[in-house]
Amino acid sequence: MVKAGVLGATGSVGQRFILLLQDHPDFELYALGASSRSAGKEYKDAVTWKQTALLPDFAKGLPVEECKPEGRFADVDVVFSGLDSDVAGEVEKAFVDAGKIVISNAKNYRRTPDVPLIVPIVNPEHLSVVEKKIKDAADQGKPKPGFVICISNCSTAGLVAPLKPLVEQFGPIDALTATTLQAISGAGFSPGVPGMDVLDNIIPYISGEEDKMEWETRKILGNINKEGNEFEPLNEDSMKVSAQCNRVAVSDGHTECISLRFANRPAPSLDQVKKALSDYKCDAFNLGCHSAPKQTIHVLEQADRPQPRLDRDRDAGYGVSVGRVREDPVLDFKMVVLSHNTVIGAAGAGILIAEILKAKNVL
Amino acid sequence: MVKAGVLGATGSVGQRFILLLQDHPDFELYALGASSRSAGKEYKDAVTWKQTALLPDFAKGLPVEECKPEGRFADVDVVFSGLDSDVAGEVEKAFVDAGKIVISNAKNYRRTPDVPLIVPIVNPEHLSVVEKKIKDAADQGKPKPGFVICISNCSTAGLVAPLKPLVEQFGPIDALTATTLQAISGAGFSPGVPGMDVLDNIIPYISGEEDKMEWETRKILGNINKEGNEFEPLNEDSMKVSAQCNRVAVSDGHTECISLRFANRPAPSLDQVKKALSDYKCDAFNLGCHSAPKQTIHVLEQADRPQPRLDRDRDAGYGVSVGRVREDPVLDFKMVVLSHNTVIGAAGAGILIAEILKAKNVL
Amino acid sequence: MVKAGVLGATGSVGQRFILLLQDHPDFELYALGASSRSAGKEYKDAVTWKQTALLPDFAKGLPVEECKPEGRFADVDVVFSGLDSDVAGEVEKAFVDAGKIVISNAKNYRRTPDVPLIVPIVNPEHLSVVEKKIKDAADQGKPKPGFVICISNCSTAGLVAPLKPLVEQFGPIDALTATTLQAISGAGFSPGVPGMDVLDNIIPYISGEEDKMEWETRKILGNINKEGNEFEPLNEDSMKVSAQCNRVAVSDGHTECISLRFANRPAPSLDQVKKALSDYKCDAFNLGCHSAPKQTIHVLEQADRPQPRLDRDRDAGYGVSVGRVREDPVLDFKMVVLSHNTVIGAAGAGILIAEILKAKNVL
Amino acid sequence: MVKAGVLGATGSVGQRFILLLQDHPDFELYALGASSRSAGKEYKDAVTWKQTALLPDFAKGLPVEECKPEGRFADVDVVFSGLDSDVAGEVEKAFVDAGKIVISNAKNYRRTPDVPLIVPIVNPEHLSVVEKKIKDAADQGKPKPGFVICISNCSTAGLVAPLKPLVEQFGPIDALTATTLQAISGAGFSPGVPGMDVLDNIIPYISGEEDKMEWETRKILGNINKEGNEFEPLNEDSMKVSAQCNRVAVSDGHTECISLRFANRPAPSLDQVKKALSDYKCDAFNLGCHSAPKQTIHVLEQADRPQPRLDRDRDAGYGVSVGRVREDPVLDFKMVVLSHNTVIGAAGAGILIAEILKAKNVL
Repeated sequence: MVKAGVLGATGSVGQRFILLLQDHPDFELYALGASSRSAGKEYKDAVTWKQTALLPDFAKGLPVEECKPEGRFADVDVVFSGLDSDVAGEVEKAFVDAGKIVISNAKNYRRTPDVPLIVPIVNPEHLSVVEKKIKDAADQGKPKPGFVICISNCSTAGLVAPLKPLVEQFGPIDALTATTLQAISGAGFSPGVPGMDVLDNIIPYISGEEDKMEWETRKILGNINKEGNEFEPLNEDSMKVSAQCNRVAVSDGHTECISLRFANRPAPSLDQVKKALSDYKCDAFNLGCHSAPKQTIHVLEQADRPQPRLDRDRDAGYGVSVGRVREDPVLDFKMVVLSHNTVIGAAGAGILIAEILKAKNVL
Repeated sequence: MVKAGVLGATGSVGQRFILLLQDHPDFELYALGASSRSAGKEYKDAVTWKQTALLPDFAKGLPVEECKPEGRFADVDVVFSGLDSDVAGEVEKAFVDAGKIVISNAKNYRRTPDVPLIVPIVNPEHLSVVEKKIKDAADQGKPKPGFVICISNCSTAGLVAPLKPLVEQFGPIDALTATTLQAISGAGFSPGVPGMDVLDNIIPYISGEEDKMEWETRKILGNINKEGNEFEPLNEDSMKVSAQCNRVAVSDGHTECISLRFANRPAPSLDQVKKALSDYKCDAFNLGCHSAPKQTIHVLEQADRPQPRLDRDRDAGYGVSVGRVREDPVLDFKMVVLSHNTVIGAAGAGILIAEILKAKNVL
Repeated sequence: MVKAGVLGATGSVGQRFILLLQDHPDFELYALGASSRSAGKEYKDAVTWKQTALLPDFAKGLPVEECKPEGRFADVDVVFSGLDSDVAGEVEKAFVDAGKIVISNAKNYRRTPDVPLIVPIVNPEHLSVVEKKIKDAADQGKPKPGFVICISNCSTAGLVAPLKPLVEQFGPIDALTATTLQAISGAGFSPGVPGMDVLDNIIPYISGEEDKMEWETRKILGNINKEGNEFEPLNEDSMKVSAQCNRVAVSDGHTECISLRFANRPAPSLDQVKKALSDYKCDAFNLGCHSAPKQTIHVLEQADRPQPRLDRDRDAGYGVSVGRVREDPVLDFKMVVLSHNTVIGAAGAGILIAEILKAKNVL
Repeated sequence: MVKAGVLGATGSVGQRFILLLQDHPDFELYALGASSRSAGKEYKDAVTWKQTALLPDFAKGLPVEECKPEGRFADVDVVFSGLDSDVAGEVEKAFVDAGKIVISNAKNYRRTPDVPLIVPIVNPEHLSVVEKKIKDAADQGKPKPGFVICISNCSTAGLVAPLKPLVEQFGPIDALTATTLQAISGAGFSPGVPGMDVLDNIIPYISGEEDKMEWETRKILGNINKEGNEFEPLNEDSMKVSAQCNRVAVSDGHTECISLRFANRPAPSLDQVKKALSDYKCDAFNLGCHSAPKQTIHVLEQADRPQPRLDRDRDAGYGVSVGRVREDPVLDFKMVVLSHNTVIGAAGAGILIAEILKAKNVL
């Protein structure tokens, strides 16, 4: 069993990490970090638990410590970070400097050239950059280095899932539009999105979100440099991405209406597109990872699906649903993509990344 | 005062027509038509009133008749039709044959070549086709003919409002995408959209809606033939339109995330686009129509607006709000459009069309 | 394995029965009945599946038959009925006449004197009436008789759960008030509660519901006659019950604010009341039934619990949550009760009743 | 025109006061107070306006000052306070000491013996205590004294409205229960109730609310002492009140399911109760106050009314709707009461109190 720690353990992402580590075959939750206000308490006394599942017994009595690579954190092999971005930068750096593997939900290092930005059902091959880092250190007789791996933004995860098999089979996408209808759980719960903003309403704006989607998509679908140690995102000309983000009255599950155009002519047929989506098997599944979805992409044929309330829990939230795949009068194809924002779009992605690292003997 | 009748008077659109006719300076509600089940009753006994305003006193005791151009309907000058499309075709034809002016919310005649499809804040000039019809009859010594004028689909109304001034000033739009987040009131209320479909959910499909938006937009922004008696919608190549329609948990107010590209290069600047939208004054306002919005398009500068709960009632629902106007990496510009689906998108449009007809002495 | 059939298999309650029978250790789903419109089809072609879990593979290919005790139904041992009350009376009678055990969610036979009205975590001892019926038939050398067992109304189930241990320990309750905030799933989904009724709204009325709660509570907490073959509900004077029922914007989970007064003076203390609730172990658990809740009643101490979204799934929906237990200025105590309306309040109750029958060798 | 000031002008209650003062025939908005962070700015730059009506032009350029009885506040005759209770106590005292009339939505002084706690459609006669204070000062040759008048808690307002005519006609109520389903607007909007708490959920608890309802009801329906200078609330034995408060997914409008028992036997008949409610004309209406409801209590006969979305705006939110009046098996009668929490339950009540003071020449 790999010893795991959670940073930001009392927050909404931290609570999700803890739930996902319950009865996990690979990981043992060993250390919990939170603000100095919580440090020193047992977890059950520090947290305002707001999940639909009960606070697991194994976590209740765990001591909460400050977010430093010492105490119980000294003994962990992997750290899941649910920290807010205003503190994540410094804290995560301290853990990396102490030789820890940090899997972070924060945005701070996503654009750092040598940091993998991973959607585990999409681009686990990008982990080669950290594998190389470890190998180089070993070759040089240095101790195993720490590093950070970033989980993507939640709305990016849903977007790139169907793009990956399409790009693999039909070549580059040169234009992509996505209008999102995003769940409120992504904004946390104290207070998160105010009730008056969600009741009988839509908020047609999420700060920073569109830029994240546009940029992260190009990194995740992008390349690694020749040296194998840095990422080379696609440039804005070769892949134009336009996002419009909305917050809607949904608890969990981001719906995205997307359109795309392939660079190569002729474009594939509608049936080829659907088949590529249905046939896609993510590497995590092939590696036998515990949380990997049996079916990575569920292609739905009913006219009115996917729907968040009915379809968000496919494969425990690790599977992505795609419906209404059809030709688009402006670009080539349009479709509706649904992904579970707190699973494949946040904490769940972190767990699956760690499972992949373990399967690859990095952990 | 012009005598007005309402067809489908007990339905949700019919109820709205009645509310809008309350204390109207131009029209007197004189006849009410509904199914044979309701015919013969007083309106208050026939209707299950489900509006936020009380059933007006003036309508309570009005007799409900069958939807035929006789009885009290024989004396009306204009008929507002809120009939369902399964009966609207035949009923409305009978009224036209009887020489009546029918302003219809049903889809049946929208694609008929000589029927104006009108968004009253957008293309009232299309009413020239019926003005010509009247003039031709007069010239030939024939009695004043009946005709039908169609109200557009609700989501089309919001879409074309900002397009009109842009096309007027900057020339044709050759590509347009719109993803809608549509209110449930448009589907009526007995039962309308099932509660289980809207609670913590999105329905990413509305039957027939995308095709309507794509086609109607090209007719509304299109031309009249040389003879002046038929419409020539733009063809699919000169204006590509792609719609993706969603039903969301909003009572009233359709939000649409749109992107567009101009045919002419260079495209106008962002400031030029905003100014064209803000400066637009619809003809109905210039004609002094009672319900015409003082400000046709409200350009909002706050990052998180328009929002349906806060902005749908601008100018009593006749004004359209546009926010987040910005450059688009794929097409030229993107923006968020909010319109009140039961006002400018349905019954309210019908009333304003009638006001325009009156201002133009057609009524 | 006991062979089971489901009547009304395509409806919302029927779909729930099928889900609950998936991988069940005691029951094998063998027969499916629906209207003649569906009969003859495979289940997957007859149903509009609207559950959050996928349609189970084992049910997809099952043939749908008419609701008659023949065909595959001839071989089943128990029938779960999710039929609407307009057809349930006759159909269920036919099955009983054919010697079948029918466990029904319909209201038709709830008030029949020899029909048990069962909340399985509350009054399984009432099943003695059917046990006697079987024994009497055996004694008389007659074939095993058919009979119907009724599931209670959904809001009644939540109400009586905490009452049972209180009455057992502290004697009769002579006055009881309950104001409900009921989920919409109980009304089905096509159309169920209209979306316009639930969005930003409350419906302070559910047809027949208050009467059901008031009457059923007195039967469930009531007695069996001396002969052991009929039920004697408490009378309205010895137990006054007053219900006020509201429909609210919650998908699953009925919340009930209740107050009660004991007949005996002095009333128990607050701590005694809480302890009685916490300590209660339902017979189904003691019998080792598969679906029985480990903790029948969860007494919550946090001020703002139970909440439907967070607490409805305790013990897979078979456990009831009670919070805010406190003294009441008008009666003796007040508290908030949350129960899962489609599990312990409907289909789930039926399954647990069947499990109890099996544990008691009636099945 | 009476010069009016608003304290807490940028908050949700303050914004409502400003809207209600727009085009008011009696009052001129003259001074705006907010925190030192806002002081010095024009109102439009200090406020995050979140109302469905636009920020009125007359308020945009008004200077925001600190909440002290100086500057523009030195010249106002009446001050409407929407301050939070953590600062209201001290600030309002300073205004009273400066001789100002303060009408406050805060809870701080509600239980002070010589402070009127007023629901303007219920107990304006309680204003006699301040009238006496003014007269006494005049008799003693002292300057006109300042004083504070408290607006009741929002859920209390709806509760006492129907009680008043019943007590007037049929004598004391000795037992009263109320279960509320309260709108979220009462909690403000930044952040107010978190979105995750209201979506598909109920919060069965509002801090302090039940105690407020129980206590305030006894003061509002209570008496004035012999000296005419202090209030004598009913004691807990003569009127037992029990409240259970819930927050639900409604934007505006508190629904309350109430039951009551009269002290006198025999109790009135159901028809007498309904007639007393319907016939009730509040003094504010008789005084000709601008905002007074034409119909104080709307008694609805439809089984499923009142509903918040449909009925909350009766008489611009100053009228209260009562439905489902019926006999109660436990107490005497039960009914459903709907009131607009931000109008008659908060800012609107303050405005109507001021109108009454003006009509009585106190202002």
